[in-house]
Amino acid sequence: MKFAPEYVRHVLTDNFDDAKSLFLGPLLSIHYAHLVMLAGQGILCPADARVLRSALGAISAQTVQLQDIDYDGTYEDLFFYLDRLIQQAAGETIAGRLHTARSRNDIDMTMYRMRQREFVLELLQATLSLRETWLEMATQHRETIFPAHTHTQPAQPTTVAHYLLGAIEQLERDAVRLRAAYEVTNLNPLGACAITGTGFPIDRARTTALLGFSAPTGNTYGSIATVDYMLQNLSAAAVTLVGVGRVVQDLLLWCTAEVHYLRLPDGFVQCSSIMPQKRNPVALEHARSIGSKALGQATAVFLSVHNTPFGDIVDTEDDLQPLVHTTFRDATRAISIIAAALKEATLDVASMRTRAEEGWITVTELADTLVRDHNLSFGAGHAIAAKLIDRARQNASVPLAEVLAEVSEAVTGTALTYQDADLREILSPAHFIEIRKTLGGPAPALTAEAIEASRTILDRDLSWLTSTRAQLTSSAQRLNDEVAAL
Amino acid sequence: MKFAPEYVRHVLTDNFDDAKSLFLGPLLSIHYAHLVMLAGQGILCPADARVLRSALGAISAQTVQLQDIDYDGTYEDLFFYLDRLIQQAAGETIAGRLHTARSRNDIDMTMYRMRQREFVLELLQATLSLRETWLEMATQHRETIFPAHTHTQPAQPTTVAHYLLGAIEQLERDAVRLRAAYEVTNLNPLGACAITGTGFPIDRARTTALLGFSAPTGNTYGSIATVDYMLQNLSAAAVTLVGVGRVVQDLLLWCTAEVHYLRLPDGFVQCSSIMPQKRNPVALEHARSIGSKALGQATAVFLSVHNTPFGDIVDTEDDLQPLVHTTFRDATRAISIIAAALKEATLDVASMRTRAEEGWITVTELADTLVRDHNLSFGAGHAIAAKLIDRARQNASVPLAEVLAEVSEAVTGTALTYQDADLREILSPAHFIEIRKTLGGPAPALTAEAIEASRTILDRDLSWLTSTRAQLTSSAQRLNDEVAAL
Amino acid sequence: MKFAPEYVRHVLTDNFDDAKSLFLGPLLSIHYAHLVMLAGQGILCPADARVLRSALGAISAQTVQLQDIDYDGTYEDLFFYLDRLIQQAAGETIAGRLHTARSRNDIDMTMYRMRQREFVLELLQATLSLRETWLEMATQHRETIFPAHTHTQPAQPTTVAHYLLGAIEQLERDAVRLRAAYEVTNLNPLGACAITGTGFPIDRARTTALLGFSAPTGNTYGSIATVDYMLQNLSAAAVTLVGVGRVVQDLLLWCTAEVHYLRLPDGFVQCSSIMPQKRNPVALEHARSIGSKALGQATAVFLSVHNTPFGDIVDTEDDLQPLVHTTFRDATRAISIIAAALKEATLDVASMRTRAEEGWITVTELADTLVRDHNLSFGAGHAIAAKLIDRARQNASVPLAEVLAEVSEAVTGTALTYQDADLREILSPAHFIEIRKTLGGPAPALTAEAIEASRTILDRDLSWLTSTRAQLTSSAQRLNDEVAAL
Amino acid sequence: MKFAPEYVRHVLTDNFDDAKSLFLGPLLSIHYAHLVMLAGQGILCPADARVLRSALGAISAQTVQLQDIDYDGTYEDLFFYLDRLIQQAAGETIAGRLHTARSRNDIDMTMYRMRQREFVLELLQATLSLRETWLEMATQHRETIFPAHTHTQPAQPTTVAHYLLGAIEQLERDAVRLRAAYEVTNLNPLGACAITGTGFPIDRARTTALLGFSAPTGNTYGSIATVDYMLQNLSAAAVTLVGVGRVVQDLLLWCTAEVHYLRLPDGFVQCSSIMPQKRNPVALEHARSIGSKALGQATAVFLSVHNTPFGDIVDTEDDLQPLVHTTFRDATRAISIIAAALKEATLDVASMRTRAEEGWITVTELADTLVRDHNLSFGAGHAIAAKLIDRARQNASVPLAEVLAEVSEAVTGTALTYQDADLREILSPAHFIEIRKTLGGPAPALTAEAIEASRTILDRDLSWLTSTRAQLTSSAQRLNDEVAAL
Repeated sequence: MKFAPEYVRHVLTDNFDDAKSLFLGPLLSIHYAHLVMLAGQGILCPADARVLRSALGAISAQTVQLQDIDYDGTYEDLFFYLDRLIQQAAGETIAGRLHTARSRNDIDMTMYRMRQREFVLELLQATLSLRETWLEMATQHRETIFPAHTHTQPAQPTTVAHYLLGAIEQLERDAVRLRAAYEVTNLNPLGACAITGTGFPIDRARTTALLGFSAPTGNTYGSIATVDYMLQNLSAAAVTLVGVGRVVQDLLLWCTAEVHYLRLPDGFVQCSSIMPQKRNPVALEHARSIGSKALGQATAVFLSVHNTPFGDIVDTEDDLQPLVHTTFRDATRAISIIAAALKEATLDVASMRTRAEEGWITVTELADTLVRDHNLSFGAGHAIAAKLIDRARQNASVPLAEVLAEVSEAVTGTALTYQDADLREILSPAHFIEIRKTLGGPAPALTAEAIEASRTILDRDLSWLTSTRAQLTSSAQRLNDEVAAL
Repeated sequence: MKFAPEYVRHVLTDNFDDAKSLFLGPLLSIHYAHLVMLAGQGILCPADARVLRSALGAISAQTVQLQDIDYDGTYEDLFFYLDRLIQQAAGETIAGRLHTARSRNDIDMTMYRMRQREFVLELLQATLSLRETWLEMATQHRETIFPAHTHTQPAQPTTVAHYLLGAIEQLERDAVRLRAAYEVTNLNPLGACAITGTGFPIDRARTTALLGFSAPTGNTYGSIATVDYMLQNLSAAAVTLVGVGRVVQDLLLWCTAEVHYLRLPDGFVQCSSIMPQKRNPVALEHARSIGSKALGQATAVFLSVHNTPFGDIVDTEDDLQPLVHTTFRDATRAISIIAAALKEATLDVASMRTRAEEGWITVTELADTLVRDHNLSFGAGHAIAAKLIDRARQNASVPLAEVLAEVSEAVTGTALTYQDADLREILSPAHFIEIRKTLGGPAPALTAEAIEASRTILDRDLSWLTSTRAQLTSSAQRLNDEVAAL
Repeated sequence: MKFAPEYVRHVLTDNFDDAKSLFLGPLLSIHYAHLVMLAGQGILCPADARVLRSALGAISAQTVQLQDIDYDGTYEDLFFYLDRLIQQAAGETIAGRLHTARSRNDIDMTMYRMRQREFVLELLQATLSLRETWLEMATQHRETIFPAHTHTQPAQPTTVAHYLLGAIEQLERDAVRLRAAYEVTNLNPLGACAITGTGFPIDRARTTALLGFSAPTGNTYGSIATVDYMLQNLSAAAVTLVGVGRVVQDLLLWCTAEVHYLRLPDGFVQCSSIMPQKRNPVALEHARSIGSKALGQATAVFLSVHNTPFGDIVDTEDDLQPLVHTTFRDATRAISIIAAALKEATLDVASMRTRAEEGWITVTELADTLVRDHNLSFGAGHAIAAKLIDRARQNASVPLAEVLAEVSEAVTGTALTYQDADLREILSPAHFIEIRKTLGGPAPALTAEAIEASRTILDRDLSWLTSTRAQLTSSAQRLNDEVAAL
Repeated sequence: MKFAPEYVRHVLTDNFDDAKSLFLGPLLSIHYAHLVMLAGQGILCPADARVLRSALGAISAQTVQLQDIDYDGTYEDLFFYLDRLIQQAAGETIAGRLHTARSRNDIDMTMYRMRQREFVLELLQATLSLRETWLEMATQHRETIFPAHTHTQPAQPTTVAHYLLGAIEQLERDAVRLRAAYEVTNLNPLGACAITGTGFPIDRARTTALLGFSAPTGNTYGSIATVDYMLQNLSAAAVTLVGVGRVVQDLLLWCTAEVHYLRLPDGFVQCSSIMPQKRNPVALEHARSIGSKALGQATAVFLSVHNTPFGDIVDTEDDLQPLVHTTFRDATRAISIIAAALKEATLDVASMRTRAEEGWITVTELADTLVRDHNLSFGAGHAIAAKLIDRARQNASVPLAEVLAEVSEAVTGTALTYQDADLREILSPAHFIEIRKTLGGPAPALTAEAIEASRTILDRDLSWLTSTRAQLTSSAQRLNDEVAAL
C-alpha cells in the first residue's frame, strides 16, 4: 500500500505521533492479553505463544526508543508498525496467528477505554485534592464571617465554611458522576472484532480480567459503534468544570484590591518588582482560562461526533482521541492548580468581618425576630426594620432601642422594647449565623457536622480511588504473570 | 418600585410570560406546601392558615385565565403578581405571614427542579417508546441480514436485530443516565431561603414530602447557587441525542433511493404528486434537525452558566430556564418522532439480503475457517481467500472448490479440498451470522437472548417510570389532603 | 395527503405557528413580486394577474386574523394554507399559474433572507445606540480618572473616556462585520426554483428590485443549498456579543459595593425595601445572561447545520429558523438593555479618582521620567522608583524629593534632585494621563479627537442604516405600486 | 521570583513550550523592530543599539537550539528567558534600555496578530487550492449529469459542474471573509505598552511598517483588551468549515458502494487485501473528522473568552493561543486533504447519467413544457404529467405520445399531440439541463461562463495572496536592512 504524500503529511503523521504518546502502552497490554487468551483457549499452541511473547518482549523493552521513531509512510499506523516488528521477530506465519479473532476496530476501542479510564481517575483525584483543601479551609474558617453576595451585592452574612461546603457538596456530586462515568467506561470491547464478533471460541471474560476491566461490553456492533461512555466522561468533566469555574470567579473577585479577602502565596502570583502590592492572582486566572479551554474542548468533541453514522467511522477515532486527552489534561491541570494555590493561601479575616458589619445586611434577622417575638406579620416586621435603618442612617447617635420603640409604635401602634445591647446582638453577624441552624445552615455547630460528613464522603471516595487503582495494578501484574507462565 | 420602560420591554415582559407558562403550577404547589408546613410547625396559626388557603384557592381556580394576563410593569414578576392577588384576598398582614422563612431564591430553585424533573421523565418516556419500537423491529428481524458498513463501505454481514440491539443497549445506558439525573434533580431546596436558611424552626422534610421530592438538598448556600443538577440533566439529554442522532444518520441513508432498505409510512413522508416514487423521509430529517437543535441548545446552557459567580445570580434563572425547557422539549420531540415513524415502517428485506451477498463480504469467514480447520496462520488463510476471490471474479464458471484447491496449493503447498456446496455454505451470509456466537454476536440464538434481556430491562425502566410518576401524583394528592385538613 | 398525528403534533404544528409569526409578511411580498414579474414577462396574462392580485389582496387584508388560525393537519404548512386560500378565491386553474417557475425551496430561502436582513439591521441599530450612549459618557468623562486593571489588579491610571473608546472602537468593527453580513444576506435566491432554476424566461432582476434585494444570488444549486450568509450573520452577532459581554463584566464589577464606581438608575435595579443601599444591578445581569443565551444559541445553529448534506435539507429550514430568530432577538435585547441602563447611570467620579491615587500605580511614569531626564536604563529607573516606594511606605513623613536623592545615589552613584512638588506632579494620575499622547493614548486632547472621529463613524453608520432602511421601504412601495398597476 | 512547583508543572511549562514553537520568531522580529524604532527616535543611542543588535543576533543564530531548552522555572516565560540572554550578552544596563516604552502586554498582542495573520493566509491558500481543484472538475464535467437530491431523494437532474459551482461560489465568499479577517488582524498594537501607551515619543508607524502591518491599531486600551480580530478569524474559518463540511457529506455519500459515483485515488483510500473492492474513502472521512474538530475548537475559543473582563487578562493569552493555532492548523489540514484527494479522483460518469434517467425526475420539465406550449395552468400540466407517468409505469410498451394524447384529453378535454421522439427529448436529462438557462442555471453554456467568472475571481484572490505575502516578505527584508544599518 502506498499512501499519497498529502495524506501522509496531513493525516497519518499526526495520528502516528499521537498514537505513540497515547496508546503504545495499552496496545502492548492488549497484545499480551489477547496472546494469553488465545493460548488459554487452545487457539494458539504453546510454542507459537512463546515465540510471540519474545517478539512482544523485545518491543516492550524499547518503548522509550520507539518515541523517537519518525513516521515514514511505509505502514499505515502504529499498529502496523508494531506488526512489522513482530513479524521481523516471530516470522510472518506466527505473527499472523496473533491476528486471529480480533481486528484493529476492537483493539482501538479497547485502547481508548483504557486511556480514558485513566483520565477519569486523574481528574477525580484532582477534585479530591481540591475537596481536601477546601475542607481544611472550611475547618479553619467555620467562624470567619463575610457578606454573601446575591446579584453581585452583599446580601446576608455567612461563613467561609458555609460557602465552601456548598462548593464541596457540588464536588461530591461531581465525584459521583465521575465514578459513574468510570464504570461505564471500564468495560471491555475486545472480542467485538471488526464489528460482528468472531466464530472462534474466544474467552472475552479472560481478556476482561487481564486488562483490568470490570466486565465485557455486550452487543459487538455497539461495542465498536458507541461512544456514549466517552461522552459521559466528558459530561462529567464539563459539569465539574462549570461548577468549579463559578467558584473561581468568586475567588478572583476575592483577590481584587477592592475586595481584598484572599491572598495567594507568592509562588502563585505574578509580582511587580516596582509595585510590591500588585499581586496578580495568575494561578487562579490560569485555572479559569485552562478550565474554560477544557470545557470548550469537551463541547468540541460532542460537535465532532454529532451527525456521524453509528458504526466504525474515523470521526470517533484517531483524530478525535487527542482532543479527549487534552480536554481531560486541561481539566485536571485547572483543578490541580486551584487546589495548590489555595493550600497556603490566607484570608483577610478581619476585613471580611468588617464588611459583614456594613450595610445593615443582618436586618432581615431583626425583622424575623420581631415576627417571632411578637407574632407580627412578615410585612410589619419588615416595615419596622426598614424604618429603623432609615433613622439610624440619618442619625447614628440615638440608641437603637429608642429608635425601635419609636418606629414600632408608628407601624403597629405598640412600642416594642429591647435593651440596646440585645438589639445590637440581634443585629450582629455572629448572631445571624448562630441562629441559622436548620438543615444546611451556616451555624458553626452545623458546619462542623457538615465538615465531618464531608470528610467521611471524601474518605470513601479516596478509598474507592485507591482500590480502583489497585485493581488496575493487580490486573497488570496478573497479566505479567500469565505471560511469564505461557 | 417603578421599572424603566426598556427594562420592562426587553426583560420583565418575557420573564413574566415564560413564568406563566412554565412555573405557575409549581409556584402554587410551593405556596401550599409552605403553608401546610408553617401551620404544622405552629409558625402560622390555624386561622391565618385558612385565610391563606382561601386566597390561594381563588388563584388556583383561575389558572387558565391567568394565562391571558398581559404584563403591565406594575409588579416585578409572576411571584409578585400572585402576591398582590393574595394580599387582595387575605389582607396585607396575613399575606405577609406566608413570606415567613422563605425567599424568592429558594422558591425559584424549587420551581426549576420541579419542572426539570418532569422534563427528564418525559424524555425518558420517549426513549422507552423508542426502545419498545426497536425491540419490536429487532424481534421481527433477527434473521434479516444486511451488510454492516465500516468506514462507509459494506464490510461484513450482520442482522437488523444485531444492529438495533447495539443501539438499544446505548439507549439503556441513556436511561441509567437520565434516572441518575432525575435523582440528583429531585431534591428540595425550599428552606434555603435567600441563601443562608432561616432562624425559624421550619421543617424541610415536610415540604420535601409534600412536593414529591426524595430528600431535601444539603448546604443552603449550595442549594441556591448550584446548577449541577441542571447540567447533569442536560448532559444526559445531550449524550442521548448524539447517540440516537448517529442511528438517524444511518436510517436516513437506508431511506435513500440508492440504498433503499427502509420505507417510512405515508404519514411520515413528503410525497410528490407528480413523482410518486419520490418519498422524502421528512420525519427522520426533522428528527435529525430538531435533535440537533436540542443538542445545540444544551451546549448553549453550559456556555451561559460558565464563568458566572457561584451564587444567586440572574444567569441561571429566569432568562435561562426557557432554554432548558426548549432543549428538553425539542429532545423529546426528536426522539418521539423517530419512534412514531418507525413503528409502521417496513424494511426491504430482500434487497438487504441481496446486498449482503454482494462483494464477497463474507470472505473473512472463509479465511477463518481455513485457519481453524487446517491450523493455518491468519496470513495464510487470508492469502488463500484473497486469491480465491481474485480467480472467481475473473472466471465465475469454475467451481469454487476447484479454485480453492488450486490456490491453496499455491500458497501452502497442500491442496485443501472442500465440497463446493460446503464452500458456498461457508461463504453464505447466513452461515457468517450463525457462527458468530460469542458474547454480543449476531447469531439469531444470541440476539433472541439479548432481546429478552433488553425486554427485561425495558420493563424495569418502565416500572421505575410508572412508580416515580405515581409518587409525584400521590405527593400532590397528599398536599391536597393536607391543605384541605388545615 | 394525510399526515400522521405524531408528525402533526411534534413537527408540523410548531412549524406552522413559527411560520405565521415569522414569515407571513415576506411570503405575501414574494407572492406579489413573483406575480408582477410573471405578468411583466408575459408568462401570465393580465386578466389572470388581476385575479391573483385580488386573491392575494384578500389575504393581505386579514393577516392579523390569520395569526389566530390553529393548525389542523389538512395542509402541510403555511405555504399550502395560503395556496388553499388563493385557490378558493381565484379558482384552481388560475391559482396554479402563480406556481409557474418557482418552488417552495426558493421561496423559503428568500423568506429567510428577508427576515434575517431585518434581524441584522435591528441588532446593528442597537449597537449604534450603545455607541451613542458610550460616546456621550466618554465625552463627559474625558478627565475622569480611574485605575485600569490588568490581571484583575489596579495597574495604571486611565480615563473613563479612554476605556470606553476602546470598547467603542470594537463596536465600530462590529458594525463593519454586521454591514458585511447584511450585504451577503441581501441577495435574492428567487428563481432558483427547486434547485436547478427553470426553463421559463423569468426575470430575476425584477423580483430582486421589488423585494429590496441588492442583487440576485448566482448559481441556483448554491442558492438553495448554502447558508453561509446565515452563519456570517450569526458570527457577526457572536463576535459582537463576546466583545460587549466582556465590557458588561467590567461594568458589573463597577457596580459592586466594594468597587462602587457605577450607579444604575432606579428603573434598572432591583431594590430591597429593607436594605435601601442594596441595589442589585439586574439590568446588567440580564444583559449578561440574555447575551450569553444569544451567543449560545448562535453556536447551536452552527452545530445544527454542521455535517448535513449540501443541498435542500430540513436541517437549515423551518426547525432552525426560529432559533436564528431568538438568537438575534436576544442579542438585540441584551445590547439594548445596556444602552438604556447606562444612559442615565452615574459614575462615582470622586471614588474613581481616589482609587487611582492609591497603590503607587503611577510609579512606572516616575521611572520613565528618570530614564528620559537622565538617560538611565529602564532597569535603573525602575530600581530607583521601587526603592523610593519602599521607603515612602515605611516612612511617609520624609519628603519624597529627599528620598529620591538618597535612593538614586544608592543605585546610580549620583543623587537625582527634584522639587518635591514636581515629584508629586510626576506621580499624579493627572500627569500620567496628560503625558500619554502617542496614538491611541488617554491624554484628554487625544480622547477628544478620538471621540470626534468616532462620532463621524457613528454618523456614517447611522446614515448607512437610514438609507438601507429607506431602500427597503421604497422597494416595498414600488412593489405596491406595480401590483396596483397590473 | 520563585514559582510554586505546581504552578511550574501545570502552567508555566506548557506555556514556555508553546511559546517556543509558536512565538519565538515573532518575538525576535518585535525586538528588532522596536530597537530600530527606538534608535530612529533617538530614545536609544547608536552605540547601545549596536550592542543590543549583537545580543539579538546571537539569539537569532540559535533559534533551532532554543527549541531544545527545557523550562526550569527560574524565569517566568520565554520573554524573560530571552531577556536573560540579552542581559548576558549586552549587560543589564543596556539590556534594560530595550524595555523602554513597551511592555509584555503589547508585545504579546503583536505576536498573536503576527501568527494569526499567517494562519489566515494558510487557510486561505488551502481554500484556493480546493477551488482550483473543483474548477478543474467542473470544467471536465459540465455535461456530466446526475440526479440532484432534495431531502435525500433524487429530485432533478443537474450537472457536476453546476453542483460544484454552487460550492465554489460559497468558497469565494469564504475568501472574502478570510480576507476581511486578515485586514482586521493585520494591525499593529505595539506601542500600546501595558495598556495606556507611553510618555516616550515613540513612532508607532515605524514598527508598523517594519513588522508588515498595514496600520497601527487605535485606542491603546482596546489594543490590549480586544480579541475581536481573533474571533473574526475564527468565525471566517468556522463558516468555511461548515460549508465545505456539507460538501464532504455529499462526497462521502458519492463514495458509498450503493451510490458509487466517486472513486478516490489509491493513495487516499484504505484497502482491504482480502476484499479488493472495499475501498474505504478514509481521506474524506479524515477531512470530515479533522474539520469537525477544527470547528469544535473554534467554538471552544468563543466559550473561553466569553464572560471574561475587557482588559489584559490571562484568558485571551498564552493558554488560549495554542487552541487558536490548532483550530487553524486542523482547518487547513481538512481543506488540504480534500483538495489533494479529489485532484486525481474519478467520477463514474455513466452510472451518474443512468441514475439521472431513472425515476422520471425530469417530469416537471414535461409539465412546464405543456404549460408553455399550450398555456395550461401549472396544475393542469402537472396533472397530465402525473397521469402519463402512472400509465407508463403500468404499461411501458405503449408509445408515450399516445399516452400523452389520451391523458391530456382526459384532463383538459383536448388531446395534446407530440411526436414520440420529441416527447422523449423533452423528458431527457440533457434537455432538462440544456433548457435551464436563466441566471445561475445548469445549462452548459451558463456553467462555462460561470467557470470563467470563477477563474477570474480565483486569479484575483491568488494575486491578493501573493502580493500580501510579498508585503510580509519585503517588510521582513526591510527590517533586516534597517537592523544592519543601525
